[in-house]
Amino acid sequence: MSKRLTTREDDYSKWYNELVVNADLAENSGVRGCMVIKPYGYAIWEKMQAELDRMFKETGHENAYFPLFIPKSYFSKEASHVDGFAKECAVVTHYRLKNDKNGKVVVDETAKLEEELIVRPTSETIIWDTYRKWIESYRDLPILVNQWANVVRWEMRTRLFLRTSEFLWQEGHTAHATEEEALQESKLMQKVYAEFAENFMAMPVIQGSKSESERFAGALETYTIEALMQDGKALQAGTSHFLGQNFAKAFDVKFTSKEGKREFVWATSWGVSTRLMGALVMTHSDDKGLVLPPKLAPFQVVIVPIYRNDEQLDAIIEKANELVTNLKKAGVSVKFDKRTTHKPGWKFAEYELKGVPLRIAIGPRDLENGTLEIARRDTLEKQTISIDDTVSFVEKTLSEIQDNLFNKAMNYRNEHITKVNSFDEFKKVLESKGGFISAHWDGTIETEEKIKELTKATIRCIPNDAKNEDGKCVYSGAKSIKRVLFAKAY
Amino acid sequence: MSKRLTTREDDYSKWYNELVVNADLAENSGVRGCMVIKPYGYAIWEKMQAELDRMFKETGHENAYFPLFIPKSYFSKEASHVDGFAKECAVVTHYRLKNDKNGKVVVDETAKLEEELIVRPTSETIIWDTYRKWIESYRDLPILVNQWANVVRWEMRTRLFLRTSEFLWQEGHTAHATEEEALQESKLMQKVYAEFAENFMAMPVIQGSKSESERFAGALETYTIEALMQDGKALQAGTSHFLGQNFAKAFDVKFTSKEGKREFVWATSWGVSTRLMGALVMTHSDDKGLVLPPKLAPFQVVIVPIYRNDEQLDAIIEKANELVTNLKKAGVSVKFDKRTTHKPGWKFAEYELKGVPLRIAIGPRDLENGTLEIARRDTLEKQTISIDDTVSFVEKTLSEIQDNLFNKAMNYRNEHITKVNSFDEFKKVLESKGGFISAHWDGTIETEEKIKELTKATIRCIPNDAKNEDGKCVYSGAKSIKRVLFAKAY
Repeated sequence: MSKRLTTREDDYSKWYNELVVNADLAENSGVRGCMVIKPYGYAIWEKMQAELDRMFKETGHENAYFPLFIPKSYFSKEASHVDGFAKECAVVTHYRLKNDKNGKVVVDETAKLEEELIVRPTSETIIWDTYRKWIESYRDLPILVNQWANVVRWEMRTRLFLRTSEFLWQEGHTAHATEEEALQESKLMQKVYAEFAENFMAMPVIQGSKSESERFAGALETYTIEALMQDGKALQAGTSHFLGQNFAKAFDVKFTSKEGKREFVWATSWGVSTRLMGALVMTHSDDKGLVLPPKLAPFQVVIVPIYRNDEQLDAIIEKANELVTNLKKAGVSVKFDKRTTHKPGWKFAEYELKGVPLRIAIGPRDLENGTLEIARRDTLEKQTISIDDTVSFVEKTLSEIQDNLFNKAMNYRNEHITKVNSFDEFKKVLESKGGFISAHWDGTIETEEKIKELTKATIRCIPNDAKNEDGKCVYSGAKSIKRVLFAKAY
Repeated sequence: MSKRLTTREDDYSKWYNELVVNADLAENSGVRGCMVIKPYGYAIWEKMQAELDRMFKETGHENAYFPLFIPKSYFSKEASHVDGFAKECAVVTHYRLKNDKNGKVVVDETAKLEEELIVRPTSETIIWDTYRKWIESYRDLPILVNQWANVVRWEMRTRLFLRTSEFLWQEGHTAHATEEEALQESKLMQKVYAEFAENFMAMPVIQGSKSESERFAGALETYTIEALMQDGKALQAGTSHFLGQNFAKAFDVKFTSKEGKREFVWATSWGVSTRLMGALVMTHSDDKGLVLPPKLAPFQVVIVPIYRNDEQLDAIIEKANELVTNLKKAGVSVKFDKRTTHKPGWKFAEYELKGVPLRIAIGPRDLENGTLEIARRDTLEKQTISIDDTVSFVEKTLSEIQDNLFNKAMNYRNEHITKVNSFDEFKKVLESKGGFISAHWDGTIETEEKIKELTKATIRCIPNDAKNEDGKCVYSGAKSIKRVLFAKAY
């Protein structure tokens, strides 16, 4: 893997694809639009899952599992949901194959389903069809359930992690007795997502709500976390929806209140997906490859022995094993790559490409001197330290790397939020600098669509902390009371 | 849920279904043959997953993810695999829906796939199509990969957990340079499964290999773990397959050996599924409901307060919170059910039904005396102990329950292995007593099929520890050198 990547400046999109494939994160499969997540990439996703799952459980949620298939008719039940989701879907029509006369495998036409099944693009419909059976009285509420699952949305133009026909995600689906409680839940999950993005992915995000046209199909309000990639494009990293009583009405889910009245249940849903893997790559990585925040690295430290003969290798192995034990004891995940099938230079390039936060090299002279060389992936700085100081040095440096990555991304993000007051300025900044554009908007779908048509920029969100301020819409000149954030987006 | 279950004696099958639904493990969904795994059931599955995943990683495996869909043509590539798997499958033929004139959702006939996609019934084909790209030389071997995923096998007659059209499972797929290494791997995973079944599920299993006709489609050898349920029927709980070079040949996966020769790669695959949930239920549970081994219980202890007024409840809550802290500190998972919406009697029945290993009740008199009442789910014994002894008592008793469940199941299993020497005896034992029948078999498929036809019993396995012993086939009278185990099976 000493292969050099295309640089970000030369071709950002090509750089991204090469990095994802060469760093062993994922690759395209023989199935159009579906990816294979390779072990190294999956190990990062597992770390994300573990932290998110912990956070969900700490906020009172439980996991469950609902069917992969949804009967076609379910999609007709929630009117706005149909338009949003029952479009580009994988449709199961038959349930049997057979061998034809020539021994070829063909679909058995006699085994046709009476009602087609849709591979879930999201599970609101099947879950609310289930909740009807689970909910009778206020005693059964709230229901705070999450599902880890695969979903399918047929995509014509796909990109690894960012847009694939099948992807992995979690989807939370909660049911509440009151509007207020459901609203609080959807805001809470936005906050959980923001904390995860910032504290674990070291990726700063803006919390806000979506404009009507960017909302989830069937939602009254969509809360989002928006991140900024290194090419100046925004990426929606997670959404949490307040669904009102729409799904309860569509699937007739009522409960008996404490006062004995029959009322419709209030709902939320929220999700993040393997898209976060793409966001992680594009937030921190450089032209040498992946850069991983220590909290999500499959291994935080790699040890590479430098030797000329077996005797030297044996001596290094002894010392390195000791080091591994001490690092593990301190809670540091470490890989000791003592393979003799690959040269140190190959290994250095490999772990740089894979974004391992710290690389330790130990040679015969180090053994004599009681030292080792340690290199940071984020700054590419090397340092020789006493072998006895390794554990404390590693602990301190991993924490510094995590902070450094966040701060660097935060600075970049902050430098790329630009206030504009005219449409000319809007277009100029968008083309020259990119990033988020903070501008007044008149609140109409028409203006939003016109701006999108003319510039490809969309409203990413109305920030939670947007201040009221009198202004004029950057496009129509009509009255506006707050600025919203526009950007080109993934 | 004070609803009484049908007894096992009255109707074993009905008892099972009622238990699974009423103990909140799973239920049928609106989609034919697909189940909803409810939070309590899923929490048990998560515990199984966590232990298995740890065991897989300790034996050197990594997780990855492969596509849900498999192009139809892939199934034609491995001849014996076609017959075994490309039959009762969900077939995706279209990728878009639309609204018709009346606003109804219909399949868009213009969006027909050129090649149909099959929802994976198992992933050998798509994975070996991928391994071709991953493997060039011996340096790339072994590949030790596992996948946690959902799979679909269309079933006409389904039963919760035991046979559902969609189920959750893990499938390991490994690639090796030598036959010996692949064989060792498939045997190792059989051992891992047996350890998991016995040490965590408290379910004794017999390790053996399958007869040719019961082997996985495409395997040269299938190793199995077989358990015995309380109704005398066997249940195949996990299988590990030695696949030889069949899939490597079908998908042209070769590697360059150390000696520079191009050779086909050797393969294994192995899996366990949510079927284990069914096995767990049927191994330990009784007419009052689920009985859970402590190592897989979502919570091992439940605390129920007994009170007449708020003052009493407050005093109990204070004491119980202290207890919860101490138990958690000792690594015991505990739930304190202080809900005022449900009466103690309801809670007692509920947690009995849900198989919580230990139930603690605390009332006002207990507070005065410094005592509490603790009840074991497995023996239904109650005991009053000093509140100060709780932690050590709980730790000791949980360990006793785990052992007791295993020993009880082991005794039952051992009492239900019967040696027979004639076909009359075979039929009589099968009908009167059930369980495993240890009998001589002439090694032919014909005899195996005839016995199945006449008795519904199949060869569950040729036990790994079967001793060579001269004998005559119980059906044909032909020569036989070892006994095999027959049983009716799930």
